[in-house]
Amino acid sequence: MEYRPTAAVLIIGNEILSGRTRDANAPWLAERLAGLGIPVREIRVVPDVSERIIEAVNALRAQYTYVFTTGGIGPTHDDITTAAVAAAFGTPVERNAEAEARLRAHYEHLVDMNSARLRMADIPVGASLIDNPVSVAPGFRLDNVHVLPGVPRIMQAMFEGLAHTLAGGPPMLSVSVRGHVREGDIAEPLGALQGTVPDIDIGSYPFAQGDRIGTSLIARGTDATRLRALLVSLVELMRPFDADLEVTDLPAQG
Amino acid sequence: MEYRPTAAVLIIGNEILSGRTRDANAPWLAERLAGLGIPVREIRVVPDVSERIIEAVNALRAQYTYVFTTGGIGPTHDDITTAAVAAAFGTPVERNAEAEARLRAHYEHLVDMNSARLRMADIPVGASLIDNPVSVAPGFRLDNVHVLPGVPRIMQAMFEGLAHTLAGGPPMLSVSVRGHVREGDIAEPLGALQGTVPDIDIGSYPFAQGDRIGTSLIARGTDATRLRALLVSLVELMRPFDADLEVTDLPAQG
Repeated sequence: MEYRPTAAVLIIGNEILSGRTRDANAPWLAERLAGLGIPVREIRVVPDVSERIIEAVNALRAQYTYVFTTGGIGPTHDDITTAAVAAAFGTPVERNAEAEARLRAHYEHLVDMNSARLRMADIPVGASLIDNPVSVAPGFRLDNVHVLPGVPRIMQAMFEGLAHTLAGGPPMLSVSVRGHVREGDIAEPLGALQGTVPDIDIGSYPFAQGDRIGTSLIARGTDATRLRALLVSLVELMRPFDADLEVTDLPAQG
Repeated sequence: MEYRPTAAVLIIGNEILSGRTRDANAPWLAERLAGLGIPVREIRVVPDVSERIIEAVNALRAQYTYVFTTGGIGPTHDDITTAAVAAAFGTPVERNAEAEARLRAHYEHLVDMNSARLRMADIPVGASLIDNPVSVAPGFRLDNVHVLPGVPRIMQAMFEGLAHTLAGGPPMLSVSVRGHVREGDIAEPLGALQGTVPDIDIGSYPFAQGDRIGTSLIARGTDATRLRALLVSLVELMRPFDADLEVTDLPAQG
């Protein structure tokens, strides 16, 4: 059977659960991983509570090829991700000499290298470091779990540094058509059409635009030829209800 | 012990996992529920896959006072939330006479009342309907699980109609201070301060603003007097590093 890797994203932080901060990391990782042929199949947001993090890490690492966590690896009391991930693996945390050397080299002349800052050099035994080209304090990878910080631009830079280590599958491609069509008017033939292409995922998403409603149909798969053929059928389904559809085809092959 | 309800939000839909659509429902529910004294303690996003929905519904309903699902209750083939929630409870789905009557009354003169549309009147046995003041097709409540649609303005209107049925706890209050201070400079005294107020949750959130970095400290709890006192201490902690802090106190009591 073809290699079809999957991923899960675990967002750690009370501020996302309170609704105060909008998470930008899960959508970014989802798009980026999809481009690598590693579809994200689950996202969880949990609070800064050790048991919740341990439970989620263990559930997700058993179920998906790759897990990416964001948040909770800074120097403050609420940064408990490193300890919780180590606990999930039953491995101790120790001061990592390489991480400490990096932190000292970068920060010692700038700031007070206190014990709180040095906590960022505590890494689970057996983990490999994930480089941080922005603010030095590393993340780490333990088996299939990648531990990244919560600040989006730092997380993104660190992800770009590790992306080449991920084994991707065939890239997911998508085609779509959007129009002022009621879902209920096309639901029956659409369901029949989905039945003919079991390896392509056809999603139907209603939307409201001012006082007009409509539907986006999005088909995802890995076979460009079959997706293009399906797009023709999706457009035929919608056109009787709206002559002015927005169609997004695959990019032309160069 | 004081009644402290909790909530979980389950977002159902491939379009969120692909990163193509930004979920607006979880943050909205998180804020609205926090205002009712029902903090959201977990958010999950799962695909339109029956087993994943069943597993998540059962895990969340056992662990939290209330569960809210969004998405997957429309008329198309990928709308499988109703069947999956029913399966999670081991209860069958049947055509609900009241739901069918509402759909027919509203839509029959407008559109073709086909079997796909009538599927929106299929409701798990034992569930109570959640009114839909926008587009009529109801959601439902089964025990502590509230099943809502994915379109934000419809979901929000339906939530407002059911909010009075939820038993809230003491409302969560928050105070905060934000400034151009490095987390590492305040981490140690901040940790000590957190140790003195175990019932208040102090979060420390680094941010990057252009090329300046800083920290937001946010304290959440239910006792206004103690939060105000803590805010003074948080400001004292930050001020040596930045004289120009943004402080958000509680609203004055009228």
